[in-house]
Order: sequence, then C-alpha cells, then structure tokens
Amino acid sequence: MLPVQYLPNMEVMSIEILMGDKDAATIWRGPLKGGVIRQFIADIEWGDLDYLIIDSPPGTGDEPLTVAQTIPEAKALIVTTPQEISLADVRKSINFCRKLKMEILGMVENMSGLKCPYCGKIIDLFKTRGGVVTAEKENLKLLATLPFEPEVVKEGDAGDISILDNDGLSITQQFDKMVDEIVKLEEAEKVLPLKQRGRSGSRRDRN
Amino acid sequence: MLPVQYLPNMEVMSIEILMGDKDAATIWRGPLKGGVIRQFIADIEWGDLDYLIIDSPPGTGDEPLTVAQTIPEAKALIVTTPQEISLADVRKSINFCRKLKMEILGMVENMSGLKCPYCGKIIDLFKTRGGVVTAEKENLKLLATLPFEPEVVKEGDAGDISILDNDGLSITQQFDKMVDEIVKLEEAEKVLPLKQRGRSGSRRDRN
Repeated sequence: MLPVQYLPNMEVMSIEILMGDKDAATIWRGPLKGGVIRQFIADIEWGDLDYLIIDSPPGTGDEPLTVAQTIPEAKALIVTTPQEISLADVRKSINFCRKLKMEILGMVENMSGLKCPYCGKIIDLFKTRGGVVTAEKENLKLLATLPFEPEVVKEGDAGDISILDNDGLSITQQFDKMVDEIVKLEEAEKVLPLKQRGRSGSRRDRN
Repeated sequence: MLPVQYLPNMEVMSIEILMGDKDAATIWRGPLKGGVIRQFIADIEWGDLDYLIIDSPPGTGDEPLTVAQTIPEAKALIVTTPQEISLADVRKSINFCRKLKMEILGMVENMSGLKCPYCGKIIDLFKTRGGVVTAEKENLKLLATLPFEPEVVKEGDAGDISILDNDGLSITQQFDKMVDEIVKLEEAEKVLPLKQRGRSGSRRDRN
C-alpha cells in the first residue's frame, strides 16, 4: 500500500484516507486499533524516510503503547499547553515513556499566549510558562514555545501550511527552532551516519 | 465504593482519584479500560442521582462504546470547537451515536471566540460558527455557544468554578442556557415523572 503524497518531501497515511466516507464512525476497540497501527508502520511502502512521525492522542492507552511496542527505538516529543489540567496528563505521558524506556526528545509548549490582532497585547489563553517549568522539573529540553496563531487554524482547515514560510511570525521562528533542535539531537547521536542528513525532512525543501 | 463529594450536590469519580500517585501512567489497553468504566457505573454507590455525567474523550473508540453498551438509555451531548478539524471528529461522533441508536441531546460550540481583556474586541480563535452550521445541517439543537474565558482555565486549575456564579459574564449566561435546555428536554420526556425534578443537579444549589 502506498502513502499519499502531500508535499514533495512529505507523505501521509491515516484511517480517514482509507475510509470511503470520511465522516463514517470507525467503531473499533483497542486490539483492532493496534492492528491498524502496526499495519501502518509495517505494510505501507514508506520508502527511504528521514523521519516517520506518528501523531498520537494524549494519554497512555492503546495507541502510544502499540507504537512503543512496535518500534522499540521510537522517540517521544511531548506537546502540552501551559495550564495544569494539560500538564497533569503530560506528567503521566512522561512517566509512561520512562516506564517503557522510550527516549524523550523534549517538550513543546503549544498555544502559549496569543497576540491580540487588534491591540497587539499578549493574552495568556491557557495561563503561562507551565511547559517551561515542567520541562525544568522533569529535566527535559524545552524545544519551543509556540504561540497561538488563529491563521494556523484557518490554514490547517484548508489543508495549507504556507504560514510556516513567513519568517516574520513568532510561531514560524519557534517552529523552526523546534525542527532545528530535533535535527541537531538526531545528528549528534549518529556517530557513524548511514547517510548525510540535511534538512531534507523539513518543509523548506518542498518548493 | 463511595464517590468523592466535590460540591454538596455533586459527587465525582475518576481513575486519578483511585490511584495513589496522581502522576502515575495508568498503562492499559481497551478491555481493561472498559472494565473500569463498567465498574464506575455499576459498583460506585452513586445514590439517588438527577444526572450521571460521563466525560468521554473525543472519538469513537473503547470508552464511548463501553458507555453506550453499559447504559443503553444514555444520551449524548456533543461538544465541539468551531473549526473544521474539530467538526470532522464531531461528525464521526454523531454518526457513532446514530449507529448505536444513542439519542443526541444537542450540540455545544465551545471556545467560540474570545473577548480581548485589553481592547474588548472579539477574536475568533478557532474560526467562527462551525458548530452552529453543523448543528443545522445535522438537524441537532445547538444548546449554547460558550466563549473562551481565560478565567475558567485559571479557576479550573485551582479546582474552583465560582466564575459560573457571575451572571454578568457571557460564558455564565450561555452555560445557564445550556443547563436549562437540557433540564427542559429531560422534563418534557417525563410524562409520568418518578419524582419532581428541580434544578437540584445544577451548581446553583451548592450553597
């Protein structure tokens, strides 16, 4: 089975792509879900990838557990919003990774403040600095703090990500910082690289 | 097993309450999760309730499926944010309910705009009116549109909900409207009521 080519350097696969009716409720229990996740990893012709990114739901249930057991060398990127109710889940996810001996690349604080498009003041939507403080406490690297950007919501809905080419925006600068940090971490680990890794996994090469 | 008394008229139970260490990762697969959900419904001394509210994760997996199968007379309240990426999940949830013949009480549009605390202008965080339009299309009642309110985030983190006593706030007015609509819908269904229902399930009676 072939993945769908979304950008020249990015292929994707999801349950929704496989289903004929995209609004159909895929009603299945954990074991079935695990089977599909394993198939997505093993039976898709992914080709020669720089990175395989698996977007998991928050939590410590079937989906991340199946991923951890299917790809023992998988690494985690923990994404949180700054408030306690989100951090409470994130601390569980961190402990989940440690229990399963899954390496954590770092943390990202998402929806970290919003610049009012009318008056320019910063509004703390989900409080502030919770991700920063938790990363420190848990001895994890904070890779970026991504501000809330309503334009990302609009572009995401339209299947577009060109906002991430606008280097003047804080979210783009932080996103680039996150990608650079991850690439650096990965390259540092490769004492004997199998091949030269550039930023070929980044969105910059799509044009 | 007794639930925890959170307010004079509100008792709660959750996995986190049962665990000694609240940051522990409860790693379990679907079947185990289903067992706990069934226990929460059947083995807790809930007493004489007006309403039993089960807060399910978004989606169509183990958790809502177990609830639907354990309580065949359960009814659904569909909560969404206004943008398409959320509505895509919500359409699946609506079809899930219809497939399982679970009655849908209505829809709630959450995080529906934010009033800038500095200049007072309304910012459409997650676009606008997506829940309203979807409710119309799906022939469902829109029970409320709740604006984003950073104070709710702060109070929620502190375990407090007194902001919902401030009738001057738009979120409180919309929240009350939602509760009133649900109570009305439930009372309309009771042609021969087992007992007189007031608003004893509402937060107003906690003092």
